[in-house]
Amino acid sequence: MEKIAILGAGSWGTALAISLANNHHPNVIWCRNKAQAEEMQNHRTNQKYLKDVTLPETITVTNDLQDAIKDAKYIVLAVVSQSIREITEKIKNDISSDAILINVAKGLELETNLRMSQVVGEIVSNPFVALYGPSHAEEVSKGMPTLIVSASDNEAAAKQVQDIFFSPSLRVYTNQDLIGVELGGALKNIIALANGIAAGLGYGDNCRAALLTRGLAEISRLGVELGGKPHTFLGLTGIGDLVVTCNSEHSRNRRAGFALGQGKKLDVVLEEMGMVVEGVYTTKAAVELARTLGVQMPISEQIYDVLFNDADVNQAVGMLMSRDKKGEEEYFWQ
Amino acid sequence: MEKIAILGAGSWGTALAISLANNHHPNVIWCRNKAQAEEMQNHRTNQKYLKDVTLPETITVTNDLQDAIKDAKYIVLAVVSQSIREITEKIKNDISSDAILINVAKGLELETNLRMSQVVGEIVSNPFVALYGPSHAEEVSKGMPTLIVSASDNEAAAKQVQDIFFSPSLRVYTNQDLIGVELGGALKNIIALANGIAAGLGYGDNCRAALLTRGLAEISRLGVELGGKPHTFLGLTGIGDLVVTCNSEHSRNRRAGFALGQGKKLDVVLEEMGMVVEGVYTTKAAVELARTLGVQMPISEQIYDVLFNDADVNQAVGMLMSRDKKGEEEYFWQ
Repeated sequence: MEKIAILGAGSWGTALAISLANNHHPNVIWCRNKAQAEEMQNHRTNQKYLKDVTLPETITVTNDLQDAIKDAKYIVLAVVSQSIREITEKIKNDISSDAILINVAKGLELETNLRMSQVVGEIVSNPFVALYGPSHAEEVSKGMPTLIVSASDNEAAAKQVQDIFFSPSLRVYTNQDLIGVELGGALKNIIALANGIAAGLGYGDNCRAALLTRGLAEISRLGVELGGKPHTFLGLTGIGDLVVTCNSEHSRNRRAGFALGQGKKLDVVLEEMGMVVEGVYTTKAAVELARTLGVQMPISEQIYDVLFNDADVNQAVGMLMSRDKKGEEEYFWQ
Repeated sequence: MEKIAILGAGSWGTALAISLANNHHPNVIWCRNKAQAEEMQNHRTNQKYLKDVTLPETITVTNDLQDAIKDAKYIVLAVVSQSIREITEKIKNDISSDAILINVAKGLELETNLRMSQVVGEIVSNPFVALYGPSHAEEVSKGMPTLIVSASDNEAAAKQVQDIFFSPSLRVYTNQDLIGVELGGALKNIIALANGIAAGLGYGDNCRAALLTRGLAEISRLGVELGGKPHTFLGLTGIGDLVVTCNSEHSRNRRAGFALGQGKKLDVVLEEMGMVVEGVYTTKAAVELARTLGVQMPISEQIYDVLFNDADVNQAVGMLMSRDKKGEEEYFWQ
């Protein structure tokens, strides 16, 4: 049986490992933190990131990266997006040239504004698959019905990844629009921030539905300009992931937005959360790209000003509500 | 000032009357129930349908339909969709020929499968506007930010309706795709039922996000086949209204679905709810239309079988999850 390695022992990496094991694919998880690796290997739990699960015996957990990737046919990159470059650098000399890299981190790289496949592609030339979609790790680890997407411009690789993960509770669809899938997964976090801000300001479902609708329109506009296909933004990795993120209390981006909406400043919010909020990086990258390309992104621009120019959140929402009377088509698709 | 009449004193009719009054447009509400009309006129409350509001003094409430519509320039039809024909018949001889009819009921007529504008158009030839979008009445009545759509193939009428309702908290966009707007508003209730069923079965956010995504794809397919524009289903009356309905505990359709998901039978559910569940009619109409036109609507077909063929809800969801391995594009847009 072909070896599968999962790099990263957060909630999503762990849930995918469990799914694979339940699907009769033994696998090895690499965990950066030694104490956590020992807990997972010896006690079969992951208390910090995924409570209430028992790791099947066919999962091995190690703190040794080279050991984890040795002879692996499939390597799942399950670290945060800003660490994808670092981890790829670390493994580049020790992976087989036909190993399929499966990335699950959603985001754009800070400074370069690159998609994850571009970051990885600068370092190695292995087949690359993005495994994205609306998927809370907790639900997947419990076998609750979930639909995700295996996206690659290498169709054979996308199908191989579909095959190993596909199960009655985890349905995997292939998609060849890697650009659209990666951009949908990254850009949705901006709208999750906006949604959180609206909730933090005390606004209701009507306002948040409107933000989600208009938000999808503007991230699609940018995504299509950057080479994604319009339909992709209407699929699982577009609307689907956007809906799950905007409605989840678990989403870091939404929670960070909520705190901002309550009037807290960004540095305080980030310190209190103590973890990475991808949407903050992504807002910066997206607005820079949009300005360069001349794409209108009114919601993202307001979020940018709240995050980086100390703009007042009330005024930001006010700006969005006070534009001229318009036709809907003119407004959404300009 | 031009007279505005609102026919129907449910939560949405009342919220719109309050919005108009706050926008310096006095108006008259016709209330079918005499006791409720007297409560609203004398005590300035609407305990049954919209708690916690005080009706502005510039709203008059009457039980006399002819009195309400006499010389009205704008007439808002705020009764349930299956009563639109009856109310239009009742007023047809007493309205001025240039009165603008503003319909807010979302649904298709049972037996005929007609949209509301078609029902009204069989009786009178007045300008017709659909005022649709993601809008809980409670939030609108409190002045919480809301975006809605004034849709008509009569552009001047759509703009006049935009003008009377437009305010800092209630933004109104015009849209000339009346067919797409009406179909989005009606068909979304099928997906709300499906979403409720999934929740009632104990499924989580992942499953419901997937249902919403695939549901939007299939109602758009039917909607476009029936003459709506694709973009309309991505706007406020499409995605926006779908999201608000699927996530709201207040949605009757979602609540009815939830009870079905818990294993109750349709007749029991409808009796317990004691009110109209538009999505039940709409599922029947949509599936009949889809079969005639050869449009694939796998989710709607399963809901139809649950509602009308006594199908088991678990099996229905199982059917949706057990289809073959596919590409996403093939699946969503076939």
